[in-house]
Amino acid sequence: VRILVANPNTSAAVTALVERAIRRVASPRSEFLFVTGSFGAKVVSSWSENAIAAHSAVDLVSTHAKGCDGIILAISFDSGLRAARELSGLPTLGITEAALLAASTLGVRIGLVVLSSRAKTLYRDLVCSYGLGDRLCGIRALDGEGEYDERRGGYGEEELTAAARALIELDGAEIVILVGAVFGGRSLDIERRLPVPILDGLRCAAPMIEALIDIRAPGASTEAGRDRSDRLVTP
Amino acid sequence: VRILVANPNTSAAVTALVERAIRRVASPRSEFLFVTGSFGAKVVSSWSENAIAAHSAVDLVSTHAKGCDGIILAISFDSGLRAARELSGLPTLGITEAALLAASTLGVRIGLVVLSSRAKTLYRDLVCSYGLGDRLCGIRALDGEGEYDERRGGYGEEELTAAARALIELDGAEIVILVGAVFGGRSLDIERRLPVPILDGLRCAAPMIEALIDIRAPGASTEAGRDRSDRLVTP
Amino acid sequence: VRILVANPNTSAAVTALVERAIRRVASPRSEFLFVTGSFGAKVVSSWSENAIAAHSAVDLVSTHAKGCDGIILAISFDSGLRAARELSGLPTLGITEAALLAASTLGVRIGLVVLSSRAKTLYRDLVCSYGLGDRLCGIRALDGEGEYDERRGGYGEEELTAAARALIELDGAEIVILVGAVFGGRSLDIERRLPVPILDGLRCAAPMIEALIDIRAPGASTEAGRDRSDRLVTP
Amino acid sequence: VRILVANPNTSAAVTALVERAIRRVASPRSEFLFVTGSFGAKVVSSWSENAIAAHSAVDLVSTHAKGCDGIILAISFDSGLRAARELSGLPTLGITEAALLAASTLGVRIGLVVLSSRAKTLYRDLVCSYGLGDRLCGIRALDGEGEYDERRGGYGEEELTAAARALIELDGAEIVILVGAVFGGRSLDIERRLPVPILDGLRCAAPMIEALIDIRAPGASTEAGRDRSDRLVTP
Amino acid sequence: VRILVANPNTSAAVTALVERAIRRVASPRSEFLFVTGSFGAKVVSSWSENAIAAHSAVDLVSTHAKGCDGIILAISFDSGLRAARELSGLPTLGITEAALLAASTLGVRIGLVVLSSRAKTLYRDLVCSYGLGDRLCGIRALDGEGEYDERRGGYGEEELTAAARALIELDGAEIVILVGAVFGGRSLDIERRLPVPILDGLRCAAPMIEALIDIRAPGASTEAGRDRSDRLVTP
Amino acid sequence: VRILVANPNTSAAVTALVERAIRRVASPRSEFLFVTGSFGAKVVSSWSENAIAAHSAVDLVSTHAKGCDGIILAISFDSGLRAARELSGLPTLGITEAALLAASTLGVRIGLVVLSSRAKTLYRDLVCSYGLGDRLCGIRALDGEGEYDERRGGYGEEELTAAARALIELDGAEIVILVGAVFGGRSLDIERRLPVPILDGLRCAAPMIEALIDIRAPGASTEAGRDRSDRLVTP
Repeated sequence: VRILVANPNTSAAVTALVERAIRRVASPRSEFLFVTGSFGAKVVSSWSENAIAAHSAVDLVSTHAKGCDGIILAISFDSGLRAARELSGLPTLGITEAALLAASTLGVRIGLVVLSSRAKTLYRDLVCSYGLGDRLCGIRALDGEGEYDERRGGYGEEELTAAARALIELDGAEIVILVGAVFGGRSLDIERRLPVPILDGLRCAAPMIEALIDIRAPGASTEAGRDRSDRLVTP
Repeated sequence: VRILVANPNTSAAVTALVERAIRRVASPRSEFLFVTGSFGAKVVSSWSENAIAAHSAVDLVSTHAKGCDGIILAISFDSGLRAARELSGLPTLGITEAALLAASTLGVRIGLVVLSSRAKTLYRDLVCSYGLGDRLCGIRALDGEGEYDERRGGYGEEELTAAARALIELDGAEIVILVGAVFGGRSLDIERRLPVPILDGLRCAAPMIEALIDIRAPGASTEAGRDRSDRLVTP
Repeated sequence: VRILVANPNTSAAVTALVERAIRRVASPRSEFLFVTGSFGAKVVSSWSENAIAAHSAVDLVSTHAKGCDGIILAISFDSGLRAARELSGLPTLGITEAALLAASTLGVRIGLVVLSSRAKTLYRDLVCSYGLGDRLCGIRALDGEGEYDERRGGYGEEELTAAARALIELDGAEIVILVGAVFGGRSLDIERRLPVPILDGLRCAAPMIEALIDIRAPGASTEAGRDRSDRLVTP
Repeated sequence: VRILVANPNTSAAVTALVERAIRRVASPRSEFLFVTGSFGAKVVSSWSENAIAAHSAVDLVSTHAKGCDGIILAISFDSGLRAARELSGLPTLGITEAALLAASTLGVRIGLVVLSSRAKTLYRDLVCSYGLGDRLCGIRALDGEGEYDERRGGYGEEELTAAARALIELDGAEIVILVGAVFGGRSLDIERRLPVPILDGLRCAAPMIEALIDIRAPGASTEAGRDRSDRLVTP
Repeated sequence: VRILVANPNTSAAVTALVERAIRRVASPRSEFLFVTGSFGAKVVSSWSENAIAAHSAVDLVSTHAKGCDGIILAISFDSGLRAARELSGLPTLGITEAALLAASTLGVRIGLVVLSSRAKTLYRDLVCSYGLGDRLCGIRALDGEGEYDERRGGYGEEELTAAARALIELDGAEIVILVGAVFGGRSLDIERRLPVPILDGLRCAAPMIEALIDIRAPGASTEAGRDRSDRLVTP
Repeated sequence: VRILVANPNTSAAVTALVERAIRRVASPRSEFLFVTGSFGAKVVSSWSENAIAAHSAVDLVSTHAKGCDGIILAISFDSGLRAARELSGLPTLGITEAALLAASTLGVRIGLVVLSSRAKTLYRDLVCSYGLGDRLCGIRALDGEGEYDERRGGYGEEELTAAARALIELDGAEIVILVGAVFGGRSLDIERRLPVPILDGLRCAAPMIEALIDIRAPGASTEAGRDRSDRLVTP
């Protein structure tokens, strides 16, 4: 299957990071098309940048979704998710949505590690929009200042582990999500050091979108399936 | 990967039906182990039968989960789900949970087709337990009498289609789930006749559990992955 | 005070309609600046058009808000509301938000008349986002087909009255809102014929934004106030 | 327009304080009639005093509302609000309701500063009754003892500022309300010292009730409007 | 034990009806003191009458609770409940609260039969205040006109049965409550004709208040218990 | 009346403790039949043990309920409650349910003292299932290790009092419940030392089940009542 991975931000460096994270976990049977937004912020950290990113997501989807079987929105605010779904008619997942759906099956109380305090309210709203507000037990930011710095993808294992540990020990988290495209795959690095499952959005999004494609069109992800005449056409 | 498909009911006929439905949609890379409960009701349709089925699920999982990578509870009340998860430490999905998670990414307002009016309250509770209570727009039973008859798996396409159509036209459903192990794969039969996506639990559970296994242990579902030394051990 | 009235759609005809409605109810002490979006749909009726309209709202606000004291988003989906607020630092109201806040003080159970069935889910989400989901007793669309036609602003009093009456008599509405910029001021035409208060967004938005401006900077709306040295500067 | 400001408590000193606060923010176009309850507590701080105050509100409204265009209930528990509305048929606002409505448009997460710990549960209930329970991030009392002392209106800026700062820094408040008639106008004194908007009930109630009067009867607040034949008569 | 039964309305006829209903179900070990309000409406059917009744409840409790062990508020809006509890420090139940608590243990989905459509919103609020809003499946009024007529206590079995049946068959009620002091004991008359349990407030309130008295002061309801030195004094 | 007290665990020692606690508070007019589960854990402290206990509850009820008038499930997770109710057609209470219903009438904000941190999520779910999630202000565990030790029923008054005090002073609890069959009657020991009511499940369950039996069949609990021909037969 062919999967569009759209980063509605304008930073190609983040898209490269997204690609590395997806390649680390993706199955060999999928091809991925990575695209970067042509307008808006380098990295979203405000409501207005998020509004522009939602348009950018629509723009990327309308330009690149043709010929694809599913879409991953590689932005942790899941910007423009319903719009992208509606426009493409394809299975579409935001990376934070993917992590939350997976988390909901692995534990009851969910904690989030995020980059900046400034975005806590956006993330809280997002979790509530997926019906999991009552299960959110805490959001901990790695930095309270709110200024984004691209090198932060470089937060060390110590800092990530400490934030996750605080969610587990102080807030009662039974599962922790590292929220942010820059944390793609980083949960794999720290999971062994912690007593509960740790996830991140990109690690979850690739397997989940393949599953949704299979659900909509059974067999689609197998060679045979791609040619099957009974493949469903999503309306 | 090896997946345990546990039917906590005691009807081998239903397990056979479950097997046919799973085979219809499963990917070739998974093996499935189908097991049937050794005590309890043939088919659950009450709170007390459901309580016994939850124990039966625990029993089946403790007996058969060894050597498996994930578990599907093939019973539409998702009986014993959290218990099975806790006991096995493996990715575990109920079939109605699987359908609801998939549905939540394909539409906002969700409608359910169920076998009997008697179980409406159980299903409503179940949907709420996954955080989707506000998105449930209707439950329509194929029969209001409440007596279960095994031949009902034989409901024709006309009846299923009519119930789904009522959910769409009268209740505003943007997606419809046929709820019940006996409806495994039946959504594929009627989807083309209706204007919104139609799902059923077994169709969703197989791809979703494979995705969750991949998320917990990236690469697990590939041959290479099975031998990878960095495979995560679920605690 | 000077108020920016931003229509993030691209239809100048709708902006003209908005201007007439605002002029009908506005106080003489306010000046209004009416602006129309430069990209996006003529009228929003889908999630993707709405995502673009939110960007358009951000664009209009960043271009025109300088020198203004408050902002009205003249679009019934309140597209880009939080973004516009954040960007401008000014009191900002969506027209449906304004009507809902006013309605919440005039009755407990609220009913909505909307143009098209297709947008019901968007409006339901919007009402919930303002904390009034439990008080929403019904949404009735004037037309179920979902295709928007600009002449529909021309719905007659009979049709509007009938929809409002159904909300009151069948759904228990204690207050009814005509939702949509095209209905600006139309509630004044039909209110006398119905037993409960009827509102529309534009009728509510102008007085409410003036109040919010006064709250943020007391005295701002009087001549004297405009020169007062103790006027608060919104951060 | 003529606005009844009813203090359902029996303390004329508090009514005088209310009058000073209203005069500080009110527009010149409104006349205010200030009245004090003839039975009940001097200041409400319990459920039973609150029940009596609600009756007192009904009593004041039935005696004094004739000839008025709107009503402000100058008591922070909004005692008897729905009763006063129903009885008068006029736009009616409680002062805490007014502050909460304004706050809901200026920030997502709301914090409250209240006089006494004893009343926290009453206020929590009140916030929930307006649909904003999920957005309440904290209530901080200036004093935990629960005994009310009229001189407390005299809390200094330091104490008010410290409580507001704790809500912002520890609880994540994006907007803070000083709750209580005795704090009328005090938010204006401390707002410059804090990084988010600070409100109080009386500061918000006057502009908001004028707006609601204008919404119900467009033009009412202008001289011309008062004589307009098309003025709506509230049923 | 000695139980105050306070009717905060001013109709002695209703108090007499209340007494007959309590005597029909009460245990011989309790004495009851029946009192009627000295101000307010004969029967409450509006928010303002309800506000006055809450004060009347406070008044009756402060006058008559001395020497009592528990309190029943014999008014279906449970007017002044928290105030009466706080004031007396005694176990205190509203009759609708009592019926709802009992109902919550006998079925999941609850339906209400009420006298007048006008009060539906008050009752809905009341049910939500006890945390049972999600389980309320319908409210059916015996009369939609809203004018109360004392003879209505005389509604026949046919009408009560028909309303209950509609809740069961159309709304899915698993338990039905006849709401209103005038229906005291009437559920006993119609229960045999219907397939689910039917309750009314007075039938539930007497046994429940005795239980709460026993819980607060174990043994209180036995002769021996009344003299036990270890009887708890409610603070 | 005859009341079945079913301990679905397999520890006869806990059943003996339950019997002592019930005898301490029960009225002389009731007979109790104490039974212990024949399979499952000695004491439940996990989801899987809880699933087995629910089956055990069903088993005990189907074996022993004949001839009884009501049922108490003497296990703090209220395991199998709805199943036991459905199966027996008798008034049935879980001990934590009984304490929560009583607590809901004695205070608004409820705090729980539990044995082990491990079970916090189970208890939170349970409280929510009774509609009281919004009123739960805290859960404090006496021990965080999660290993159950039968001697813990022996927690001293100091430890229980300290945990309750923390709930009152730090979490704002207006009422505290000691959750667990092992705490039966212990609330009587510490209540005098604390400023708010303290309850435990067994103390509440006996009076409450008697009340529910009386409600279902008025007069049942009196000698006379037992022979009354008009006694209702629960369907």
